[in-house]
Amino acid sequence: MTDANRESVKGNDPDRVVISAALTGALTTRDQCEAIPYTAEEIAEEAAAAREAGAAVAHIHARTDNGSPTYSTERYQEIKDEVQARTDIVVNFSTGAIHEPVESRAEYVRETQPEVAALNMGSMNYAKYSESREDYVFDMVFENSFSEIREMVTTMQEAGVKPELECFDTGHIGNTRPLLAEGKLEHPLHFSLIMGVLGGIPATAENLAHQVRQLPDDATWQVIGISEDQWRLVGAALAMGGNVRVGLEDNFYVSDGEMAESNADLVEKAARMARDVGREPATPDEAREIMSID
Amino acid sequence: MTDANRESVKGNDPDRVVISAALTGALTTRDQCEAIPYTAEEIAEEAAAAREAGAAVAHIHARTDNGSPTYSTERYQEIKDEVQARTDIVVNFSTGAIHEPVESRAEYVRETQPEVAALNMGSMNYAKYSESREDYVFDMVFENSFSEIREMVTTMQEAGVKPELECFDTGHIGNTRPLLAEGKLEHPLHFSLIMGVLGGIPATAENLAHQVRQLPDDATWQVIGISEDQWRLVGAALAMGGNVRVGLEDNFYVSDGEMAESNADLVEKAARMARDVGREPATPDEAREIMSID
Amino acid sequence: MTDANRESVKGNDPDRVVISAALTGALTTRDQCEAIPYTAEEIAEEAAAAREAGAAVAHIHARTDNGSPTYSTERYQEIKDEVQARTDIVVNFSTGAIHEPVESRAEYVRETQPEVAALNMGSMNYAKYSESREDYVFDMVFENSFSEIREMVTTMQEAGVKPELECFDTGHIGNTRPLLAEGKLEHPLHFSLIMGVLGGIPATAENLAHQVRQLPDDATWQVIGISEDQWRLVGAALAMGGNVRVGLEDNFYVSDGEMAESNADLVEKAARMARDVGREPATPDEAREIMSID
Amino acid sequence: MTDANRESVKGNDPDRVVISAALTGALTTRDQCEAIPYTAEEIAEEAAAAREAGAAVAHIHARTDNGSPTYSTERYQEIKDEVQARTDIVVNFSTGAIHEPVESRAEYVRETQPEVAALNMGSMNYAKYSESREDYVFDMVFENSFSEIREMVTTMQEAGVKPELECFDTGHIGNTRPLLAEGKLEHPLHFSLIMGVLGGIPATAENLAHQVRQLPDDATWQVIGISEDQWRLVGAALAMGGNVRVGLEDNFYVSDGEMAESNADLVEKAARMARDVGREPATPDEAREIMSID
Ligand SMILES: [Zn+2]
Ligand SMILES: [Zn+2]
Ligand SMILES: [Zn+2]
Ligand SMILES: [Zn+2]
Repeated sequence: MTDANRESVKGNDPDRVVISAALTGALTTRDQCEAIPYTAEEIAEEAAAAREAGAAVAHIHARTDNGSPTYSTERYQEIKDEVQARTDIVVNFSTGAIHEPVESRAEYVRETQPEVAALNMGSMNYAKYSESREDYVFDMVFENSFSEIREMVTTMQEAGVKPELECFDTGHIGNTRPLLAEGKLEHPLHFSLIMGVLGGIPATAENLAHQVRQLPDDATWQVIGISEDQWRLVGAALAMGGNVRVGLEDNFYVSDGEMAESNADLVEKAARMARDVGREPATPDEAREIMSID
Repeated sequence: MTDANRESVKGNDPDRVVISAALTGALTTRDQCEAIPYTAEEIAEEAAAAREAGAAVAHIHARTDNGSPTYSTERYQEIKDEVQARTDIVVNFSTGAIHEPVESRAEYVRETQPEVAALNMGSMNYAKYSESREDYVFDMVFENSFSEIREMVTTMQEAGVKPELECFDTGHIGNTRPLLAEGKLEHPLHFSLIMGVLGGIPATAENLAHQVRQLPDDATWQVIGISEDQWRLVGAALAMGGNVRVGLEDNFYVSDGEMAESNADLVEKAARMARDVGREPATPDEAREIMSID
Repeated sequence: MTDANRESVKGNDPDRVVISAALTGALTTRDQCEAIPYTAEEIAEEAAAAREAGAAVAHIHARTDNGSPTYSTERYQEIKDEVQARTDIVVNFSTGAIHEPVESRAEYVRETQPEVAALNMGSMNYAKYSESREDYVFDMVFENSFSEIREMVTTMQEAGVKPELECFDTGHIGNTRPLLAEGKLEHPLHFSLIMGVLGGIPATAENLAHQVRQLPDDATWQVIGISEDQWRLVGAALAMGGNVRVGLEDNFYVSDGEMAESNADLVEKAARMARDVGREPATPDEAREIMSID
Repeated sequence: MTDANRESVKGNDPDRVVISAALTGALTTRDQCEAIPYTAEEIAEEAAAAREAGAAVAHIHARTDNGSPTYSTERYQEIKDEVQARTDIVVNFSTGAIHEPVESRAEYVRETQPEVAALNMGSMNYAKYSESREDYVFDMVFENSFSEIREMVTTMQEAGVKPELECFDTGHIGNTRPLLAEGKLEHPLHFSLIMGVLGGIPATAENLAHQVRQLPDDATWQVIGISEDQWRLVGAALAMGGNVRVGLEDNFYVSDGEMAESNADLVEKAARMARDVGREPATPDEAREIMSID
């Protein structure tokens, strides 16, 4: 990759792509896609297979054995242990939820100390509209006030957990400003640019380029494309020097009409697409170095 | 203005600028700036003076006589009557509020039928951080779910009121998509691009250009710059072919350290800046034509 | 592809990619890459194989049998006949040259009437700098004055040849303005956005997005990435809804260190990359429809 | 100006604007505008008056006493002496010409050692089309090959003259890359972004933002808007944190139909526009510090 491209690469490695696998999510179910792991062992097996296929990071939401979302510290600890018993993949825990109080989400982060945890950086509508039904499938306000963000980031700072700044819109990136001024966030920052949720920034390559321009020069970043636009956004991000997240949380389909049989199927495709533009998947240790994870 | 510039002009008039005067706001007080009008007569006098100075639209929040915000239909009607008794300026009513239910805000719109009413197009944090105090001056979540937006826009559609789509971030512009699909919004759309609120898109010329790129080709638009960044954003918008809003709701200062003695002071400066880039303030009737207000 | 993406798709088909194969070029030699075709038969065989691999358009520079560039009408006619005897691929002839007068290049276009011919839209430096040698490998001024452009486009208009507007920089796109005003060009226009030549616009995804923004809404476009940046630009263009050109004229390598054994090798990779983002290669007839070639 | 705006400010001073006055040009004549200075004394008087009105830099082309362009070292020396006898303004000499060999232009730079000299960074068409006449007013190729650029920049480097990098398109900015690699250019760079010449990048605020994005973070920059688009571009640049050039070389008109009676008239307007967005004209010494002129 030539020098001219440093512009959108920012703090990423132009030659190595950090592929994250979002193994589970909170809302997807086995009725929708059989491959979704629920138990700690299932999640750990998926993590290990994703690692083999090229993933360096596993992004995880805990589930009870029957698949309900849980914020239990014990369950998060069990998952961490099972994953680390099988593979060296970077462990990244979700902290987002629509109706769970920030205290309970902060607790499992503090206690289990994953290497990375997601941090939602602002509020927005979080909705889905069905053109065929001419109605909203769901219509929520995703609330993350500064006081909640501050509480969560303080927990992460004290626990030595790297925050992954989840930004669904341009203002969310701007919301880092007071947190940097307060010393709650420290450079280099690590960003997820999430696109394709109704209520957040629309999923276009142009908008991805715009989001990347907002980032500090030394920041690392990945794109998270939700549902049908995912593969195009993965293609755009790989071309720009970005990292990418794939996985059953975000999208079930390897291609139109072909459902993934595992997270590894999706990671494998991302790895091929990376190699097609001359970039190699980073190992977990390379990812730790790129993202300044101690 | 040459043809190359049509790109950012969109549906606006490259040679005529629609200047809106945001006369009052909901939260500003006479303790902060003596010129803020409270009573219907005071508001109408400010509207008439702003019109003389070059404003084509008066954006108004009702107040009680002692300055508290009110959502009273009677008060809004009184304001409308007093304004129209004095001047031909386009009457534009606010509909935003942090804690007032959508029903009461919809009611005065339905009953008083202003030519234009503001419509907030999404949710976000709405905060202010003071670097000197190292603390948040305020920290709110500004909630506007799709169901609320839908209720408000339905009211406007039935009452023949032109919605002014208030967009604080890129996702808010994208939120027009389901409303267009449902037929709740109709082209040409009219947008306000609000910049400089912590929680929304940061106030840069680059971001303004980005927001404008999202708009349909036939849409009209204005910039609303909040507080100290206002005049730079007015300058940027005028250069791009945009319309502009100024007024005591958004900013008290004609220049650093010089507080306005009336809304007209701010309008007068905007008009001079428009002429300096070769554009003339539109009259109210020209504004009606540009914005397709029947 | 969802609606939000129409922005960068312009007049292209979001679901179908027109892949062009630049089979020969003028300057590349068999010493550099054995697969480069010289004779009319060789060129036609490469065209047919590229078509099988997914190409819809063959972009061709004539060569003498020993590989020198030629502007001979006879040779161009022979190539056209041989290609059309083997395949239904769209025939696209180069018209560029550093030292050949415009008259001789216009002549073979007028006489052979290819479906499409390239038209260089402006002047620029055309150079290559070697960081290792710390010197310029070559350093030319590529001259295409308006009077030359006008002569060439008049020829194409009279001969019923669709011009492919070759733009190496933003100004070159702007240069369409007087030609449209004169009626020498007619909508919908078809553009090639060439990136990666020293002297022209640098080869970044950000710059590609910028170039696309300049185009009329109904214009079709492809990216042409020169040398090592090609595959990244192909990835970016596919994600944005663009068409792509690959082929031995632009780049010999399927991947780092792996030289192509035929143009079809390069087309095959482009087709796989297109499918990976959910787009199918267009057939020649689909390409004719997309690009409005009668 | 808030922090968010550093993005487009680059190495400029957000609070101080360096206003350059392009006093003469090479081609404009007193038949077109009576105020154009020809003799060294006239030029120096205009420089001093421009300084009083707010200009920090005088950009000068030498003329013979009857107004023809001249590349005479003696005349350039005379101008420098006369200017410096009257005012502390930064002296900036043109080096551009369509038909004058680079040697003669290098000579007066070497001998007279102005603080700054313009350096054209690439080739392009340089034309003007009249829609009313339906013809080209002029149609030239403006040639500046790398070998010429290199010769000129070597002269400047040896003479201790700061180059002002004249960029008419995006590729021209990219052309700094080999010169930086060779050590012919050194950071921080100083750029002029010229807009509105047919053949170069079209004069839109969007394109100005794009050009600025290409610049190194510590680069200083100004916009040069040619003819009728000038004031809009001045407005856009001031809003973005840019410096600006005005003057009779670029545009005769203070406003539509009102011709300037001196360069100072144009500078005075630029200064007012700067103050209207909260920025103060820099003094020559402040300009030297901002632009790192020793
Ligand atoms: Zn998640
Ligand atoms: Zn308001
Ligand atoms: Zn070619
Ligand atoms: Zn000059």
